[in-house]
Amino acid sequence: MGRGERLVAIGGVAAGLSAAARAKRVDPSLEITVIERGAGISHASCGLPFLIAGDVRNAETLVSSSPQQFERERGIRVLTNHEAVEIVHSGRQLVVHDLQVGERKRVDYDRLVLATGASPRIPFEVGENDRGVFAVRSLDDALALNAWLESEKPSEAVVIGSGVQGLEWADALQKRSLKVTLIERRGFVATRCDPEIGALVRSALQEAGVRVLTGSAVLGVETGTGGSISSVITDAAVVPCGVAIVSCGAEPRVDLARRAGIILDRCGAIAVDETMETSVRGIFAAGDCACVKHLVTGAPYYQPTGALAVKTGRIAGANAAGRYAAFPGALATQAVVASDYELGMTGLNSEEAERGRLKPVAVTVRAPEKARYLTGAGDLTVRLIADADSRRLIGAQLYGKRGVTGRLGVLAAAVASRFPLDELALLDLPYAPKASPVWDPIHIATGELLKKL
Amino acid sequence: MGRGERLVAIGGVAAGLSAAARAKRVDPSLEITVIERGAGISHASCGLPFLIAGDVRNAETLVSSSPQQFERERGIRVLTNHEAVEIVHSGRQLVVHDLQVGERKRVDYDRLVLATGASPRIPFEVGENDRGVFAVRSLDDALALNAWLESEKPSEAVVIGSGVQGLEWADALQKRSLKVTLIERRGFVATRCDPEIGALVRSALQEAGVRVLTGSAVLGVETGTGGSISSVITDAAVVPCGVAIVSCGAEPRVDLARRAGIILDRCGAIAVDETMETSVRGIFAAGDCACVKHLVTGAPYYQPTGALAVKTGRIAGANAAGRYAAFPGALATQAVVASDYELGMTGLNSEEAERGRLKPVAVTVRAPEKARYLTGAGDLTVRLIADADSRRLIGAQLYGKRGVTGRLGVLAAAVASRFPLDELALLDLPYAPKASPVWDPIHIATGELLKKL
Repeated sequence: MGRGERLVAIGGVAAGLSAAARAKRVDPSLEITVIERGAGISHASCGLPFLIAGDVRNAETLVSSSPQQFERERGIRVLTNHEAVEIVHSGRQLVVHDLQVGERKRVDYDRLVLATGASPRIPFEVGENDRGVFAVRSLDDALALNAWLESEKPSEAVVIGSGVQGLEWADALQKRSLKVTLIERRGFVATRCDPEIGALVRSALQEAGVRVLTGSAVLGVETGTGGSISSVITDAAVVPCGVAIVSCGAEPRVDLARRAGIILDRCGAIAVDETMETSVRGIFAAGDCACVKHLVTGAPYYQPTGALAVKTGRIAGANAAGRYAAFPGALATQAVVASDYELGMTGLNSEEAERGRLKPVAVTVRAPEKARYLTGAGDLTVRLIADADSRRLIGAQLYGKRGVTGRLGVLAAAVASRFPLDELALLDLPYAPKASPVWDPIHIATGELLKKL
Repeated sequence: MGRGERLVAIGGVAAGLSAAARAKRVDPSLEITVIERGAGISHASCGLPFLIAGDVRNAETLVSSSPQQFERERGIRVLTNHEAVEIVHSGRQLVVHDLQVGERKRVDYDRLVLATGASPRIPFEVGENDRGVFAVRSLDDALALNAWLESEKPSEAVVIGSGVQGLEWADALQKRSLKVTLIERRGFVATRCDPEIGALVRSALQEAGVRVLTGSAVLGVETGTGGSISSVITDAAVVPCGVAIVSCGAEPRVDLARRAGIILDRCGAIAVDETMETSVRGIFAAGDCACVKHLVTGAPYYQPTGALAVKTGRIAGANAAGRYAAFPGALATQAVVASDYELGMTGLNSEEAERGRLKPVAVTVRAPEKARYLTGAGDLTVRLIADADSRRLIGAQLYGKRGVTGRLGVLAAAVASRFPLDELALLDLPYAPKASPVWDPIHIATGELLKKL
């Protein structure tokens, strides 16, 4: 990029700030502006369940930077309370709406990074005046939820959706001493995993006192006095509660991009190449509004996670500033560290593998996560999925009391690097009796998988 | 191998039993004998410090199988209290010494697996009647140490050697409320790491109350009444103590092999090919008496660890039974999980890389091991070493309160698979606020390393 050119990032959370910061480091001569609808920037959305659970000192800790700090420390202009409403390609201008003053203005750009994020998916009607139903994505949402818990003191909660975030919410509300019912539309919980692993999570939840309703579609909520929620209605039951959290995934915010003629992918998010550039030259996209390449299938995939947002943001920022950088792809890796269990998954699950016309072969192995002779040694369940034709590891799911996330990282590296299974079965993994037996669950599961190939 | 042929494994611990068990599974028609000098088989040597520390319920827990059990369950004959003293190639016979009866006999074999193990290296003189000096390799050694601690009630201990096992012993003795002095010949502790990481371990030890003497060669011990140890003498100090543990590494037991004309490698252990076959056809070696290929250098390497013994034993057993299996190589991966810290290393350290005529480039990065906003979040130190010419990751060292071993596994997988550093810096590792920040210490360290390449 030429000196002094203008880069605008739309979105002041993970991806947008990561892009802006990276671009400034690559080319300090750039004039960079971040445009953000909200009043603040840079909050850690993934920390919100932990804020409610009481594991975060205070809400301010979740905000890593104020707009003023970011401007001062990075030399990047931040326009909060401004919404980008139109991209005018011809003039390389952005129409922005000043939400406080209530007027529109134009911002010039030479390069643009779209980091417009996602909205919560709410698969049923919620009345405008219904109170006590939360789909928490922003710090303000979490503070509103917290205020509700403190003022209304509900004793029963419903969490709708059993993905990683739904499980984190169930855990957080339990820690707040609420009686939790988890409702899942599909026939098993932890739906990013195969049902075999979901069954283990279900047991852990039930043991911890969570009521689990699977195969239950939520039709709506019932409210009582003042519009306060009194129950969640499914196709089979009425579940009384004083608070409900909707955790049914996210939908990319792509209106701005769509209106500007930028091509969306089948996954519903903005299509990008490996530099995170969209179909329009000079316009990049990153974070929860963009697709990424799945490392196993090579196909575009929608994975709205914070960990990916900072990575794709960085790549978009580097390229927007004129330095080539490629995003290699992602694996849909996710993990939950709950009070009573850990769960994680990477790569494809069996259903996705079949949909992708692979030939999934899976094994599920339960093995000690540390030396058996130590007091307190527990088991870990490892499910591995290979493709029968290529003999490649294409997915892994882990469940146990502890020891999940590190091993999930090993398996993510193995999937990403196409590490031969024969070598994984004998990999010189760290062995310390307190952290692993001589044959790690990874070795044992890989050995079993090899027998089926 | 032909049906009903005879396979003899010399050594009844990890490698020998693993080889015998694997061979029987590959070819159940084999007549298999395990020959063991000691009275028992199958004890978990790596668990001995934990037995002393009180983390193991009882000593029996460390023995996974009795000779009778192993014979009955596996159909493998076990000769305990028998020492193999000569290999007679011409007749494919083994001369064994029955240590109880005191007579020699001959055992026929068609295939042989040498799993003769290693002896502790003791780099100074210990008098035959000196009491209170222990180099613990067997369960009997550990029981003798325990009896000594219980009868003599020493208040001060010396641990000589600061490798992974020395560190485990220091931790174990501290847990038994002894005042520990750790003596290391080299200028820093944790000598499998670079000095930068050793300095962190030294601080952790000192904070925990361990006295650390580096650059100190032990010359011998002083004894008092009844030959009981009263102090350890170094070239610079006299360190009073009531018990001393020597942890200065191991020397392969290769007399039997050497006398049989089997070729040893420069590393001092038995040279083998990828099937664990020695220079003599039909004779295999595994475990602490054999070399393995180092995955980074491709050169033979001596790595006497339990985790490797079971793996090389399995490969030797499969090949001895007639099924081809290859051991891909090892990475010298090691880890310690102590009371106050975790430490681990894989691949080459800087010194080894230079000796191997590589061009090591290293970075050391300190970064949070979980989301900063969580209460109790700690830091992890990651040291990565790459080769400047090939831009490959060739080694990693990690230190922290927790979160070390899982990440070490990721880095071991990255070294073994020659995963490109550009991709490791953006790998879709598990992200859960309680287990990792959005940018994992691995990402950050890899990013810093890339800047130096």
